Amino acid sequence: MPPPAAISPDSAPVQIALDAMGGDHAPEAVVAGAARLSLSAPRLQLTLVGDVARISAILERTRHDPERLSVQHAAHAISMDENPREALAGKPDASLLVAARMVAAGQADALVTAGNTGAAVLACARSFGLLPGIRRAALAAVYPTQRVRGGQRDPFSLMLDVGATVECTADDLVAFAVMGSAYARVISRNPSPSVALLSNGAEPMKGPRQVVEAHARLRLHPGLNFLGNVEGVDIPKGTADVVVCDGFTGNVALKMLEGVNETVVALARYAYKRKLLWRAGLAMLAGGVKRLKALTDWQQYGGAPILGFDRLVIKAHGRSGERAIVNACKVAAKAAGSGLLGHIAQGIEQARDADAREQGVAG
Amino acid sequence: MPPPAAISPDSAPVQIALDAMGGDHAPEAVVAGAARLSLSAPRLQLTLVGDVARISAILERTRHDPERLSVQHAAHAISMDENPREALAGKPDASLLVAARMVAAGQADALVTAGNTGAAVLACARSFGLLPGIRRAALAAVYPTQRVRGGQRDPFSLMLDVGATVECTADDLVAFAVMGSAYARVISRNPSPSVALLSNGAEPMKGPRQVVEAHARLRLHPGLNFLGNVEGVDIPKGTADVVVCDGFTGNVALKMLEGVNETVVALARYAYKRKLLWRAGLAMLAGGVKRLKALTDWQQYGGAPILGFDRLVIKAHGRSGERAIVNACKVAAKAAGSGLLGHIAQGIEQARDADAREQGVAG
Repeated sequence: MPPPAAISPDSAPVQIALDAMGGDHAPEAVVAGAARLSLSAPRLQLTLVGDVARISAILERTRHDPERLSVQHAAHAISMDENPREALAGKPDASLLVAARMVAAGQADALVTAGNTGAAVLACARSFGLLPGIRRAALAAVYPTQRVRGGQRDPFSLMLDVGATVECTADDLVAFAVMGSAYARVISRNPSPSVALLSNGAEPMKGPRQVVEAHARLRLHPGLNFLGNVEGVDIPKGTADVVVCDGFTGNVALKMLEGVNETVVALARYAYKRKLLWRAGLAMLAGGVKRLKALTDWQQYGGAPILGFDRLVIKAHGRSGERAIVNACKVAAKAAGSGLLGHIAQGIEQARDADAREQGVAG
Repeated sequence: MPPPAAISPDSAPVQIALDAMGGDHAPEAVVAGAARLSLSAPRLQLTLVGDVARISAILERTRHDPERLSVQHAAHAISMDENPREALAGKPDASLLVAARMVAAGQADALVTAGNTGAAVLACARSFGLLPGIRRAALAAVYPTQRVRGGQRDPFSLMLDVGATVECTADDLVAFAVMGSAYARVISRNPSPSVALLSNGAEPMKGPRQVVEAHARLRLHPGLNFLGNVEGVDIPKGTADVVVCDGFTGNVALKMLEGVNETVVALARYAYKRKLLWRAGLAMLAGGVKRLKALTDWQQYGGAPILGFDRLVIKAHGRSGERAIVNACKVAAKAAGSGLLGHIAQGIEQARDADAREQGVAG
């Protein structure tokens, strides 16, 4: 395997392999996003991976710069609701796998896909290696919060893992903290992102064994701004820039957040039946929530990384439109240009050194 | 230990031991609630457990029926933020422990406390036995949903465990399902409450090992209306009448729900800064949420049970006022009068029989 191509200096062009067939609006939205970027982002080189006939047909009627945009044929596509294992086994030439192989071979710096999440995680696990000291990958997610953070004043927090690793060890949680912190530093331009462990209480002894152990070790990590434990109520509040948890809890939490707007609207309807006087207020409530949803739209952010691999991967939302694809590619380019993988490797090494020192003191 | 006093026929009076010193508004709110019940609920016999001087002083100026209301002195009180273990060790005559001992001795049918949750779970574990076939207790919580359910058309779902048992086995999850179902049948007058396992996907194989195993066993339980797995998004929706999970995940989920209203208001403020045009709508939004909060107030429900013990325990919210205390006592009386503990024991036996049958088939 060649050395990671992902750590390139700021000035070099960034090569992105785009899974043109992944997502609810593929290939149209993906091709449109790539076409727009080819005209507006001179540092990017984009490869659309997928059905060459369909992609070419869209490109023919879409303004783009052919110097910055190429097409790589892939015979198959994995749909959103396919079983990941079966899809990968049955479609070795799926666009997702072809794009991942390009990145593995060093022909591109980052993979961007809006397709089937489970298949994306599995394809990465099969195509890429893990960074040294990392046992399992983490799927991260960004979600809206009140607090703004980082150089970009983003009203977003990062949470990981949200589903790649359902059962985690303390080692995994420490690695996720390091990876999340590095990502927030690079992408949100937040020089010292606060990192917290999700638990059932603020006290260091609260939680299952692996959380208690991870807490003890994260406290000693010199490179992290570790806040300690946060609770469920802190997730919507946005108390921490990076929330670390196992993939099971993170998945439940993320999907609850997705349901929040829906719930408020639903409760409003219930209340509405009860008290007609609230009619105006509750109609406004429902409308307001819809607008808030638009405001805090994930399309603004574009995507979230799958972290832990020795290659860069941005998973855009399945419902991504052109704008979300554009933003996901920009995030991938920023991660590649800033040496994210090097930052993560360095953080993992620091964690290992801190553990070794602690064991020396204890021994 | 005498036989459980909790299964009493519908016509017999129900004896309730009330921790008068537990909760943010104790003893005033607890005494006021008991006084009101003594006048309005002829089937209840209430014992206020706590500082006799303070309780008597409040009773002197509060209309009540002394025939139905007695006071049992307890020298100490456990505060809301005390460490549960230390509090129980240092205060053997705390009102909570004295009340629990009364219930253990059969002098009362149920314990009601609005005090320190951790201390309440621990006091029960020390004072009571577990029902046969139950390894660990579960703290349940009710939370508002859109869907109304049960004979009372309650817009509430039950979730358990929300913090008593942080690490659960498949056995525990099956027991929680049985207990939650029995409770919903009795309290919400829901003849066949739907029960679901919280997981990171709807498929039976999704989730950590214990969730997958519990799913397989719950499918075979003849006495349960088992829906299968639900995801985080289903919690606020209220897809299931009873949501079953480990105490860690349940605690995170419950605390996230508590933060939901807060978040919507917070996001509204963020949006407000961005777009002044939304001003009116967002002001309504904030006001609407406040009203919704009042509507879906936990005070309406009163409290939630701690399940698994051979005695009845209702944990009222720490912020309980008089009305919440009244409702918590009514819930306790309903649980006692309907033989909840017997229903739970029966459900656990059915689960054991179903497992045995399955092993017979498999073997």
